[in-house]
Amino acid sequence: MKKAEEEYSFLKACQRQPTDYTPIWLMRQAGRYLREYRALRKKYSFLEMCKNPELAAEVTLQPINRFKLDAAIIFSDILIPLGPMGVKFEFAKGEGPVFHHPLRDRKEVEKLRMIEPEEDVSFLMKSIQIVRAELENQIPLIGFCGAPFTLASYIIEGGHSKNYILTKGMMYQNRSTWDVLMEKMSEVLIRYLNAQIKAGVQAVQVFDSWVGCLSPQDYKEFVLPYSKKVINGIRKKVPLIHFATSSSTLLGLMKQAGGDVIGVDWRVDIGEAWARLGYDVAIQGNLDPVVLLGPVNLIKKEVKEILHRIGGRRGHIFNLGHGILPNTPVDHVAVLIDMVHEFSSKVRPERR
Amino acid sequence: MKKAEEEYSFLKACQRQPTDYTPIWLMRQAGRYLREYRALRKKYSFLEMCKNPELAAEVTLQPINRFKLDAAIIFSDILIPLGPMGVKFEFAKGEGPVFHHPLRDRKEVEKLRMIEPEEDVSFLMKSIQIVRAELENQIPLIGFCGAPFTLASYIIEGGHSKNYILTKGMMYQNRSTWDVLMEKMSEVLIRYLNAQIKAGVQAVQVFDSWVGCLSPQDYKEFVLPYSKKVINGIRKKVPLIHFATSSSTLLGLMKQAGGDVIGVDWRVDIGEAWARLGYDVAIQGNLDPVVLLGPVNLIKKEVKEILHRIGGRRGHIFNLGHGILPNTPVDHVAVLIDMVHEFSSKVRPERR
Repeated sequence: MKKAEEEYSFLKACQRQPTDYTPIWLMRQAGRYLREYRALRKKYSFLEMCKNPELAAEVTLQPINRFKLDAAIIFSDILIPLGPMGVKFEFAKGEGPVFHHPLRDRKEVEKLRMIEPEEDVSFLMKSIQIVRAELENQIPLIGFCGAPFTLASYIIEGGHSKNYILTKGMMYQNRSTWDVLMEKMSEVLIRYLNAQIKAGVQAVQVFDSWVGCLSPQDYKEFVLPYSKKVINGIRKKVPLIHFATSSSTLLGLMKQAGGDVIGVDWRVDIGEAWARLGYDVAIQGNLDPVVLLGPVNLIKKEVKEILHRIGGRRGHIFNLGHGILPNTPVDHVAVLIDMVHEFSSKVRPERR
Repeated sequence: MKKAEEEYSFLKACQRQPTDYTPIWLMRQAGRYLREYRALRKKYSFLEMCKNPELAAEVTLQPINRFKLDAAIIFSDILIPLGPMGVKFEFAKGEGPVFHHPLRDRKEVEKLRMIEPEEDVSFLMKSIQIVRAELENQIPLIGFCGAPFTLASYIIEGGHSKNYILTKGMMYQNRSTWDVLMEKMSEVLIRYLNAQIKAGVQAVQVFDSWVGCLSPQDYKEFVLPYSKKVINGIRKKVPLIHFATSSSTLLGLMKQAGGDVIGVDWRVDIGEAWARLGYDVAIQGNLDPVVLLGPVNLIKKEVKEILHRIGGRRGHIFNLGHGILPNTPVDHVAVLIDMVHEFSSKVRPERR
């Protein structure tokens, strides 16, 4: 059934408007826990799937065809804009991304190229257009990018990191190089988000996945200005979700950086987090992805607990606290979505 | 110079009594950043060094001979009590601990043995006695153990873990097995701490290093009762430091579980954390270990910042937010200790 944009419960919740039930989508909802995804992955590498518009569109729609999700999110990866900037990486088996030439000095940072998303990542714009057409306005489509800090940390460390020694090393000891890198990254991400919005995404999420390794003071000094710049750089206003993990002490600063919705992980009590943030911003979260592996009774208990903490307030989007785990049973996902819709439609007096 | 126990600034700060300056010690202060430690490690494995009382005592004293630290901490590892419980593990090169037979079902949990620390880990008691004699009461000696959750997670996962899926799986799906495991672990740790105190340690730290992967609700339900049991099980009262990382949302609950001092990592503003905890408990922390790699100016700025946040209040022990990193320059450690002593002796009106 087609809908006008203003009828989408997901977009309404982002703007803290009343909805009939709490909308839900799941980070990494298109992923390895789906048989049909694994079938495609046998034939194509992860990056091949990201870069082929038809495949990316197909994968984006896989969970939508199975579940009553309230939003789709385009299948892609936060590292995609780094390729055209001149940074080479690959996904090593079971290891996550590997950068063979991590970038650590001023000269290398200066060589990074600006990108023209319509040309350099035209495949992404194409897959957004395909998905929008396929969705026939049943649910909205979310675009996304990594935040400047998280992308910079990948480039500097050469992959995931335990202690972020090299990233912090650049911040602390080569402030001007850090600023050049973050400035470039911000400009790239502004273009990247604007191009996705132009191509048709109706909301965006900024993933600052690893920023939780920083003290609040360092976040404020070295990261906040750049995240803010990216968020303020969006020309056509769509709802923006600002997400990080292990970020309970950064939430207030993340709100300062911007976003209509702050995404929180399971390490916080979502009710307390919202109270601390203030109710002039919407909130997204925060089921522990591991709970989805558990028995249905456990899922039920935890869903009720989260909805109870939200207490019927407008502006909550249900999600996991981080990406869905590969060994998650598919039927648990279906059950979760039904529960969120059912329970929230009964217990949310403020919404109606 | 010998001192009576009540004159130690470290023990006084644990009890929130006035001190002339802020005492400081560093987690993993006896470790790979020291040349003399690396020289010994060439000849002995890590576990050989833990289990040989003379070597363990020598390593414990290495940083004390170099620096004006306000406390020594016995050289050992949180996994040591697991050996006599019947759990086999080794330290694989560069990988941390590896358990070849992770323990995941009820039968295996029931087979875990109680320990008699005076016999089963007599080497630890011996090294405590040697260190106490060598220290000649110049500074106090800290003993330690892992908390029940952190040790259980190692046994169940078979080493470090990214998502703690198996540990949470047992919590959620085999509650009775989890309870048996945590009950046994708690009893072992009570005996282990009491034996260390009897052997001569003058304070203890409980490391719940990985508990930050839990939601506050899960901590409260599955972990708090056991940590509390361990802390309450100490017979001869000595100051207890209760420490975890990524634990900003758990601090209040950790205080409920117990401890004279709560140890916090760098992810929180230590002033805010203390205000939230309440001033009826002392606080330890919280320099980012990566800062110690930076230039002296940076260290100075951060030390001043932490002391400023503490604002001269009684009951602060300076420490890192986690263990010292292997590539930390030795002279930075010396500088840090001097700065903490010097700056705090000038700016702490409440103490004098």
